[in-house]
Amino acid sequence: MTQDYLHRIRNQALRERVVTADQAAQLIQDGMVLGMSGFTRAGEAKAVPMALAERARSQPLKVTLMTGASLGNDLDKTLAEAGVLSRRLPFQSDPHLRKAINAGEVMFIDQHLSETVEQLRTRQLPPIDIAIIEAVAITENGGIVPTTSVGNSASFAILADKVIVEINTSQPEGLEGLHDIYIPTYRPSRGPIPVMAPESRIGTPYIPIPPEKIAAIVVTEKLDSSSTILDPDDETRAIASHLTEFLKNEVRQGRLTNRLQPLQAGIGTIANAVLHGLIDSPFHDLTMYSEVLQDSTFDLMDAGKMSFASGSSITLSAAKYREVLPRLAEFKQKLILRPQEISNHPEVVRRLGLICINTALEFDIYGNVNSTHIMGSQMMNGIGGSGDFARNAYLSVFVTKSIAKGGKISSVVPMVSHVDHNEHDVDILVTEQGLADLRGLAPRERARVIIANCVHPDWQPALQDYLDRALERGGHTPHVIEEALSWHDRLRRTGTMKPE
Amino acid sequence: MTQDYLHRIRNQALRERVVTADQAAQLIQDGMVLGMSGFTRAGEAKAVPMALAERARSQPLKVTLMTGASLGNDLDKTLAEAGVLSRRLPFQSDPHLRKAINAGEVMFIDQHLSETVEQLRTRQLPPIDIAIIEAVAITENGGIVPTTSVGNSASFAILADKVIVEINTSQPEGLEGLHDIYIPTYRPSRGPIPVMAPESRIGTPYIPIPPEKIAAIVVTEKLDSSSTILDPDDETRAIASHLTEFLKNEVRQGRLTNRLQPLQAGIGTIANAVLHGLIDSPFHDLTMYSEVLQDSTFDLMDAGKMSFASGSSITLSAAKYREVLPRLAEFKQKLILRPQEISNHPEVVRRLGLICINTALEFDIYGNVNSTHIMGSQMMNGIGGSGDFARNAYLSVFVTKSIAKGGKISSVVPMVSHVDHNEHDVDILVTEQGLADLRGLAPRERARVIIANCVHPDWQPALQDYLDRALERGGHTPHVIEEALSWHDRLRRTGTMKPE
Repeated sequence: MTQDYLHRIRNQALRERVVTADQAAQLIQDGMVLGMSGFTRAGEAKAVPMALAERARSQPLKVTLMTGASLGNDLDKTLAEAGVLSRRLPFQSDPHLRKAINAGEVMFIDQHLSETVEQLRTRQLPPIDIAIIEAVAITENGGIVPTTSVGNSASFAILADKVIVEINTSQPEGLEGLHDIYIPTYRPSRGPIPVMAPESRIGTPYIPIPPEKIAAIVVTEKLDSSSTILDPDDETRAIASHLTEFLKNEVRQGRLTNRLQPLQAGIGTIANAVLHGLIDSPFHDLTMYSEVLQDSTFDLMDAGKMSFASGSSITLSAAKYREVLPRLAEFKQKLILRPQEISNHPEVVRRLGLICINTALEFDIYGNVNSTHIMGSQMMNGIGGSGDFARNAYLSVFVTKSIAKGGKISSVVPMVSHVDHNEHDVDILVTEQGLADLRGLAPRERARVIIANCVHPDWQPALQDYLDRALERGGHTPHVIEEALSWHDRLRRTGTMKPE
Repeated sequence: MTQDYLHRIRNQALRERVVTADQAAQLIQDGMVLGMSGFTRAGEAKAVPMALAERARSQPLKVTLMTGASLGNDLDKTLAEAGVLSRRLPFQSDPHLRKAINAGEVMFIDQHLSETVEQLRTRQLPPIDIAIIEAVAITENGGIVPTTSVGNSASFAILADKVIVEINTSQPEGLEGLHDIYIPTYRPSRGPIPVMAPESRIGTPYIPIPPEKIAAIVVTEKLDSSSTILDPDDETRAIASHLTEFLKNEVRQGRLTNRLQPLQAGIGTIANAVLHGLIDSPFHDLTMYSEVLQDSTFDLMDAGKMSFASGSSITLSAAKYREVLPRLAEFKQKLILRPQEISNHPEVVRRLGLICINTALEFDIYGNVNSTHIMGSQMMNGIGGSGDFARNAYLSVFVTKSIAKGGKISSVVPMVSHVDHNEHDVDILVTEQGLADLRGLAPRERARVIIANCVHPDWQPALQDYLDRALERGGHTPHVIEEALSWHDRLRRTGTMKPE
């Protein structure tokens, strides 16, 4: 290894703490609670967790792992396969870890992403022994400059007994200055979170911790994983188009201006496509106040549509990353990365009045949304930040394709098999079939609009039939209770929701 | 009628606007949207809605009625029976109106109580034609001084085209000075809600509107209805005791002090009993930041346990009302009544770090809570403020008795038939059987604790059997999906959840 990293450790005394990943991993003992950087495959610590997985092959080693959100570089896979994870929170999106979670081998605590550090700070979760944080640099006073995500890194480092820093020489030094680290004051004397606009800077550009807490520094050069979003297709383009038309009408009605309100969009292909759809729209001077900044954020900026974006991480495709990297200084003027507690804070979400666009796995005829559980039992990824945003949004939008698995599954069902967002938190539903505006409607009215506008024609008669029979039974939210989950049961038994 | 009311209309010009209730009701036309004072049977307009119901007997008259929350004096009953209500929001608790809602005759829009006026302000709900507000007095500049509740009255009056004021001479003039009216500034330039503690005063003691908007003034003298809470019984005392013991342990663990955190408690017998339980506790200098202040608030103050309480209404038993009335000046130093948007504001709830105690109709083995729907379809009252509080609480507690209807119903079920609060928003569950501390637990772990601690012995074997069979199927949140709602279906068919 070259000495190219030395200037990145600006606190001279700390240069003596540089060790190998294996040596750093020795600090970790069986049963410990680890807090690790990483949010939507961006900026996770990379070397130490790998060394930990390796160590676990030869000795019993189980830890609780907290992160910001999902990890890249197959870390959750590697750690799960090595059997290192006894508990994992607050989010994941790895197929192998998911399997272990659904088998009951890893206890997964699925949380609203703004809440994990609140519970840590009040000691309602077990305290963090060691934080492992990827950094661009360490400042003269021992401050940690994060890389492509902030996530929960700041609170993890502040609350942990010891901190291991991974200086990643592949992460451009130009990232310094992008971050805005603010930690709410402790109750009972907490003041307002002083974010008044997406561009508000309220904190420091580094994580302030006493340098003596940094127990080890490891140097790495591994890149972040690229995002896995797919290009827009006909359906996602149709979803984007329905939503754009709706927003244009809101402007015509005088409820919004052409600047809209600050946008939040969940991670993934559909939300990314929806944002892409705004490139060909009359809207301008848009801003984002979101968790993850994806390709679409930068495309909107390049199209002259977006003036500022605040997030907790940057997760790009490989091509977009290569394009953004040389222009980092330019983009940095228009970006802030914040702790996820702040990017997702209910106080700020409500104050700014966000338009929030999140993805549903399925929704029901009354507008309840399932974002997490397949057939009511099998965890997919986790609720993530969708609850932080949807509950407090100016406008809460959920998007999904109307069918899945080549038509074997209707994404609109009589009753969702798991509720992440109930009717009260869902204003607008969009599929490629159309858009349902549920604002101010009672459940019976919601059902009519949803069935008319959002359901795939193949499934419309069956849902209408269900609703008709439910209405005969009566109720504010009419159901044929013994049939309400029968579509999921049929899917479980036969591989399709279609009648036998 | 005497002229005793005249000095209460301190704006001289407005004295000419005094009319009868029938005359005022003539301002209301078919199809209008009305915004009326009233929150948890306190401070509702009383004469004009009665006159409206009378008018509707002789001519077709349908309106949308928005209030703060539930109404007293059988108003919802009278209006529903007169067929006046086409739409009702955001909450109700009247058996007759409930029947009309469940029959689909009245469209009920069940909302988080902090959100109605946000949606009105942004014109996402139809605009209010006429506001009808009960008042203690009208100030020199035309400001309206509310009575025993603030609810949504301030925003209704500010946003309406016209305002009808009901001066209620039975409401003591000493109430003036109790209220704190603050309206958030409009986005995109909204600042923080400056409430830093339950005792923060941030607004005016009256609703500021231009006097010319007051189209009519009606003088009444009808009392608020008394609260319908029952005295503590063995079960509610046991619930209170379990929660008190838990809180004492939180103090021992250093997570709370003996001042606890500001308390919120939902309306009703169980929550009131839980607060009563704090009288015989080591806690002191308690505060409340809640919606409704019930008998227990005043009992805690008299016991020297509570130093301040903020709410949106005061709803007392007849006996307690008689006791409090002569001491109003004394209590007023320790009380504030706020708009429900502020008493329930997510920003403030999270900032202050509330301990929130709300009532469940039923909960499931994974900790999802149903607060509203019987057998998944029949509306009871509405979600009220429980979602505003539970999502943002420092500690979210739900309480219920473990069985209902003499044991025919278990309040703990395999899967709730309607989800108002999902697992992410529920920290602690309490029944008379015991308490389940769900913090930091995965669903499988939650199920074990809930079945062991909260379930009535009669129902434990069946729930354990369900869980065992669900675990065989696997999943993060294991279910036997075809059986998940079978307890509710059995109840519907046979009148009991017990096996046939």
